[in-house]
Amino acid sequence: MSTLRPTEVPHGVTAAGGYRATGVHCGIKSSPEALDLALMVTDRGCNAAGVFTVNRACAAPVRYGRQRLQAPPADGFRAIVVNSGVANAATGARGEADTAATARMVADALGLLPEQVLVCSTGVIGRFLPMDCIARGIEEASRSLEAGPGGDRAANAIMTTDTRPKQTAYRVSVDGVTFTLGGMAKGAGMIEPNMATMLGFLTTDLPLPAEWMQTQLRWAVDQSFNCITIDHDTSTNDTVLLLAPPSEGDRTPADSVAEAFQMLLLRVCTDLALAIMEDGEGVHSVVKVMVTGAESPADARLAARRIANSPLIKCSWNTGDPNWGRIIAAVGNSGAAFNIDKLVVRYGDQIAFERGCAGSATRADLVKAGRQPRWTLHVDLGVGDAEGYIYGCDLSKEYVQINIGES
Amino acid sequence: MSTLRPTEVPHGVTAAGGYRATGVHCGIKSSPEALDLALMVTDRGCNAAGVFTVNRACAAPVRYGRQRLQAPPADGFRAIVVNSGVANAATGARGEADTAATARMVADALGLLPEQVLVCSTGVIGRFLPMDCIARGIEEASRSLEAGPGGDRAANAIMTTDTRPKQTAYRVSVDGVTFTLGGMAKGAGMIEPNMATMLGFLTTDLPLPAEWMQTQLRWAVDQSFNCITIDHDTSTNDTVLLLAPPSEGDRTPADSVAEAFQMLLLRVCTDLALAIMEDGEGVHSVVKVMVTGAESPADARLAARRIANSPLIKCSWNTGDPNWGRIIAAVGNSGAAFNIDKLVVRYGDQIAFERGCAGSATRADLVKAGRQPRWTLHVDLGVGDAEGYIYGCDLSKEYVQINIGES
Repeated sequence: MSTLRPTEVPHGVTAAGGYRATGVHCGIKSSPEALDLALMVTDRGCNAAGVFTVNRACAAPVRYGRQRLQAPPADGFRAIVVNSGVANAATGARGEADTAATARMVADALGLLPEQVLVCSTGVIGRFLPMDCIARGIEEASRSLEAGPGGDRAANAIMTTDTRPKQTAYRVSVDGVTFTLGGMAKGAGMIEPNMATMLGFLTTDLPLPAEWMQTQLRWAVDQSFNCITIDHDTSTNDTVLLLAPPSEGDRTPADSVAEAFQMLLLRVCTDLALAIMEDGEGVHSVVKVMVTGAESPADARLAARRIANSPLIKCSWNTGDPNWGRIIAAVGNSGAAFNIDKLVVRYGDQIAFERGCAGSATRADLVKAGRQPRWTLHVDLGVGDAEGYIYGCDLSKEYVQINIGES
Repeated sequence: MSTLRPTEVPHGVTAAGGYRATGVHCGIKSSPEALDLALMVTDRGCNAAGVFTVNRACAAPVRYGRQRLQAPPADGFRAIVVNSGVANAATGARGEADTAATARMVADALGLLPEQVLVCSTGVIGRFLPMDCIARGIEEASRSLEAGPGGDRAANAIMTTDTRPKQTAYRVSVDGVTFTLGGMAKGAGMIEPNMATMLGFLTTDLPLPAEWMQTQLRWAVDQSFNCITIDHDTSTNDTVLLLAPPSEGDRTPADSVAEAFQMLLLRVCTDLALAIMEDGEGVHSVVKVMVTGAESPADARLAARRIANSPLIKCSWNTGDPNWGRIIAAVGNSGAAFNIDKLVVRYGDQIAFERGCAGSATRADLVKAGRQPRWTLHVDLGVGDAEGYIYGCDLSKEYVQINIGES
């Protein structure tokens, strides 16, 4: 990848050729300046891949999206519409009807078939979509679609508790093939079932076969969006969608191009995942919990996740307090196999624990390592050679203040 | 049980006849007024039952206690010594040696065999026990053992971040048999691997067979101490011990007496568990999460635990914010089977969610129900007739303040 030197390019979902987008205010959010409806359109029918929340109480648009992707339209997907402010979750049959109606309205406005339109929602759970606003928004958005800067407006319109839009895009040339992959995301950390949902949208101009896209997206999401945790909640609406023009004869790109795409996909997803993390509510410190020496990758991930989700450990990360006893306790509770006499805990490169006892680092060394805004906690379980990681963050008084919903 | 009318009696572990106890300051805690070593002694050899932490990184005294209980001494257990201030966890071979040495010192001071002595520690992880303090403390404690008020001093000496001692005891008469069951506990909520450990000690004068005691204690702990959660951490030192004189020929008590004992054991354990809960760091609100309509008791407990451990839900409990969308999301993530169209969520008796949509309660109704210091959140999963519960609590800014360890 380093030899490929991908170039960073602007505009996220409209960075690649063949895509137009926009964001408008249609009245779902109360502030008249707040954009609350995004529309993305492709100039030709596209293949789509999607990864959805595993929450079994998923929202109407998630059920709709899953069905659409299972039976893709003959002429390909042409549009994605996203509203922010209302999640359309916990809304029963009426919620399902509202999602279908939204797709129909986009199809009517743009001269498409309803099955060519994907629909996402994000916002408050348990409220019905204000369909008159949605109708007005779609009407207006369909007239302001634009390549380039249109993507920036779309990234703005999908925000809820986000403090800033999240976009990224890269262009790369490999063996005579040049392609662009861009994306946008929203989410103040996968963490807010009130203003719910982590959403991600990726677009490329590299022609790809549908099934291969799905495999690649699943892999990249597992290594990026599924590796961040702010609290241990998974929302009802989490969705990541990838659009690409269909390849001729459903052919996979040549090996070198395929590999460049995989690497770029992981990079775009990781950029967006860390942007979500760093915009998390009350987050001061992002910690990569790297677990090595595990019996299996699953065990490594289990231990890393347990550490990253412990409220006590998260509290200690808020101030850089080197409370490694809490790390040992979390490993012991994780279910992962470990050998206490070979377990090693490092804050950065400072050894906090080894050979069953406190390690060589002084308290000051550990405090210094743990006070960085981004740092790595390294835990070696001492029983194998598998590894895995999770990005976690501190738990702060601001997080509690934001989420107590004093009202 | 209601027809039995148990009488509440004072002094916790010394409420039953045949037990003496004390608490002294030996210098483990820095404050000269702070008691930090408790000693309990039985006048005759007793049977002991124990339930220990499932944390696989358990402390030296936990490993020691498990071994002792597996090979009980021929003449029965005679003493329990507990120090607070240092957990003797993550201390390797030296920690094991220190625990064994502690038992030997108690045996020497009281003329017992070392295997007749059980040892518990609670406090900071990763430090070695100050054995000179322990020696001095055991010496002094062995001279101040006392029935009655001695138990109160012991309850005081096992505290770490607790703001108050936790004791309870009841006496009951059934079919001509009168017996007493008392206990003490420490723990500001199972939640502090810094000043680690939930500990509980129970004593009775009812003669019991060892194996039956173990079964009863396991059951009662599962229904009480294992039903509270402040954060989702299990410490390295959690231990509950029950002492009783051996019954003749290892006979189980008559049915009516056995049943009275079971009920009283559950009551004592529940009293102590809720006392730990209400003394939890920064806890304002204790919520019983009652899950009904589950496919299995395990599923009910799974859903209840997921709800009670969600940081977002815990934040909303801090102010009584009726954020039931978070409850739906947690149920969806729990892994428990449910039917979204039959799922019912009640705050007290106010219906927040039913038939897939918002229920009949107004926001004001829900706020009122959720602002009680103790209230029940009732979730019916709509797929079976099994049930289960967990006691949870709110997440507050004080909790974060206490646990960020600014130092």
